[in-house]
Amino acid sequence: MSEERNTGGRVMLPEPTLRRLPWYLAYVKMLDNQHIEYVSSTQIAKEINVDASQIAKDLSFLNIKGKTRIGYEVHSLVRELVDFLGFKRKHNAFMIGAGSLGAALMQDVGLSQYGLNIVAGFDINPELVGTSICGIPVYSLDELHRCQQQFNVSIAVLAVPVEHAQEAANTAIESGLKAIWNFTPYRIKAPSDIVIQNTSIYAHLALMYYRMEEKKYMNKK
Amino acid sequence: MSEERNTGGRVMLPEPTLRRLPWYLAYVKMLDNQHIEYVSSTQIAKEINVDASQIAKDLSFLNIKGKTRIGYEVHSLVRELVDFLGFKRKHNAFMIGAGSLGAALMQDVGLSQYGLNIVAGFDINPELVGTSICGIPVYSLDELHRCQQQFNVSIAVLAVPVEHAQEAANTAIESGLKAIWNFTPYRIKAPSDIVIQNTSIYAHLALMYYRMEEKKYMNKK
Repeated sequence: MSEERNTGGRVMLPEPTLRRLPWYLAYVKMLDNQHIEYVSSTQIAKEINVDASQIAKDLSFLNIKGKTRIGYEVHSLVRELVDFLGFKRKHNAFMIGAGSLGAALMQDVGLSQYGLNIVAGFDINPELVGTSICGIPVYSLDELHRCQQQFNVSIAVLAVPVEHAQEAANTAIESGLKAIWNFTPYRIKAPSDIVIQNTSIYAHLALMYYRMEEKKYMNKK
Repeated sequence: MSEERNTGGRVMLPEPTLRRLPWYLAYVKMLDNQHIEYVSSTQIAKEINVDASQIAKDLSFLNIKGKTRIGYEVHSLVRELVDFLGFKRKHNAFMIGAGSLGAALMQDVGLSQYGLNIVAGFDINPELVGTSICGIPVYSLDELHRCQQQFNVSIAVLAVPVEHAQEAANTAIESGLKAIWNFTPYRIKAPSDIVIQNTSIYAHLALMYYRMEEKKYMNKK
């Protein structure tokens, strides 16, 4: 009856659990900053609108168990979530497309706090190639393969114009990169051993606009 | 039998349809740039991995119908999708939190191309207050209410540290803002008439890291 995907020895987490873990982390990190020592699943539930039993279940996948009547130890809960979510390890990445959004992401120190270490940027614009953004060098896209051999990077962050998205992804995959964090709204096609993570911020804008119109309409009725 | 949510006169789109529309737009925009005149749902389907019948159904919600044997007129499809998704209208917004991620988003011209017009930034850091980022002034968070009366803005883009997320959201809501585009991993609580759009890019990082580990494990087996 369990939803977990057990493949041999390693327990695979259900996708919804995986999506909720960062919410728990955000909240307990805040408690940790306030030097609060224990938190119950009921308290987390109240704060983030997820059933307490669901929270206990999600955390039990990670072998984290609360103590009866006391709850979870906040500091170790933070540590275990950070660890499990991979934020403590350093993941080298290439930024493909160092235009407006790409450059913006290269400037965000938040990414490195969450384990993403952008070691180089790539672009086809000759005005960008040879420059550096926040100390990160920008190379020509032609040099991706050579740089990959030098840096041994697994992740490509894709922030190119839509019409170049698939081509740039192909170049990354051919150079041996294993994951594409896709900021374009284009649906990248890739072999099944490549991880594609879509974060289309402009598509989220459309969702927000639509919901705003919806509420306006509902309020008028 | 229809999945659409019909509230009076206005047809409410099913959420999955709404999520797919920006994918269609990305693809047909590309075709439009290549001066391609017509596209069939089968062709879109092949490119973006969605059933052709689903695409036809999604587009019919917007009253867009293809011609038998010819398909959709690309240029008008782009125009109708851009229009429907609200990318053509100008939506004024405040950036709350002008630190690393906030400043990065203020520098991204892509957002304005998708209709988001950031008119001011807000922060509590005295070193940022009074400066400007890409010509956009940064004010003290205390001035949000006054600025809101001046600019009549509806959208708050939230890029503050997690521990200030709820408080900053409250300030925005009390000042009359109607939508919060939440870039923090914190689950904001808000009255039901407020639109919350979560875009937690760091949570997406965790999903990507996890999937990479999963693939590594699968390949080893």
